Amino acid sequence: MKKLAIISVIILMFIGQSCNTNTGAEQENAMADKNEVDAIFPKGEKGSSDLFTGNAWATSLVENDSTYNTLIGNVYFEPGARSNWHRHPAGQILIITAGEGYHQIRGEARQTMRKGDVIECPPNVVHWHGAAPETGLQQMYIIPNTEKGIVEWLEPVTNEQYNSTR
Amino acid sequence: MKKLAIISVIILMFIGQSCNTNTGAEQENAMADKNEVDAIFPKGEKGSSDLFTGNAWATSLVENDSTYNTLIGNVYFEPGARSNWHRHPAGQILIITAGEGYHQIRGEARQTMRKGDVIECPPNVVHWHGAAPETGLQQMYIIPNTEKGIVEWLEPVTNEQYNSTR
Repeated sequence: MKKLAIISVIILMFIGQSCNTNTGAEQENAMADKNEVDAIFPKGEKGSSDLFTGNAWATSLVENDSTYNTLIGNVYFEPGARSNWHRHPAGQILIITAGEGYHQIRGEARQTMRKGDVIECPPNVVHWHGAAPETGLQQMYIIPNTEKGIVEWLEPVTNEQYNSTR
Repeated sequence: MKKLAIISVIILMFIGQSCNTNTGAEQENAMADKNEVDAIFPKGEKGSSDLFTGNAWATSLVENDSTYNTLIGNVYFEPGARSNWHRHPAGQILIITAGEGYHQIRGEARQTMRKGDVIECPPNVVHWHGAAPETGLQQMYIIPNTEKGIVEWLEPVTNEQYNSTR
């Protein structure tokens, strides 16, 4: 009887651990989602610190050519990361697939962007975009009519500018 | 000893069931994902049966205008649903965000499309796209250079064409 009791306790401990391992893994995944946010595309290459503040990762989805005249890619901004100020001669469309971030046109209020949001920035308008301070951002970009030009980069977004809602 | 053995078996069965309940819920989620697939955008309006076989739901993301000359939207194809054959005067780019589906250019092999895939269909090339038989498809579309035209619809894709890999 003592033996059977010991064996039972060992089996129960083993099963208990198996169940706990699942829950632990789920919690870890939930944490990873919060910081990493769901990805559809490969993370890609780290963006240059000449063009981005913090860690931004860029993947090309459609290269520029004379058939489509359209440049498409995805940027994953880690929490707090953002582009420099810049403008696109033919404008830009942003599509948010996960996470939370900001878009600001120079002289206008900062907009918050979330999953499912579509943001248009007209031709030659100066803007920046990036992640919220505590959450990453998965952001597709579409640059149409590339025969007019692609991008003109300007100065970094200061911490004061990043943290201000205007 | 017999009593302890019986109690042990009952406890083991109960714990076994608890573990199975978790697994059952995970399986149900997986099934729901498999049929509904993750959505980023609203489901939108049901596509006309003149243009689609089965249930396809379309949401506009960027309306056509003379600033961007670009039409962007999302289509959710329920399992088995597909577009008619059609062509775009300026071509089309498809971006798959969830699920599984097919793309076929007339006269070429059928391609399978999955999350993260980017498919280009050149100007004036006849094609169709839709979901796999058992899995839905979330598919963004981008039509560039809309000043050249948007879409010319043709006949439905027959069941025989849909089920053939060529």
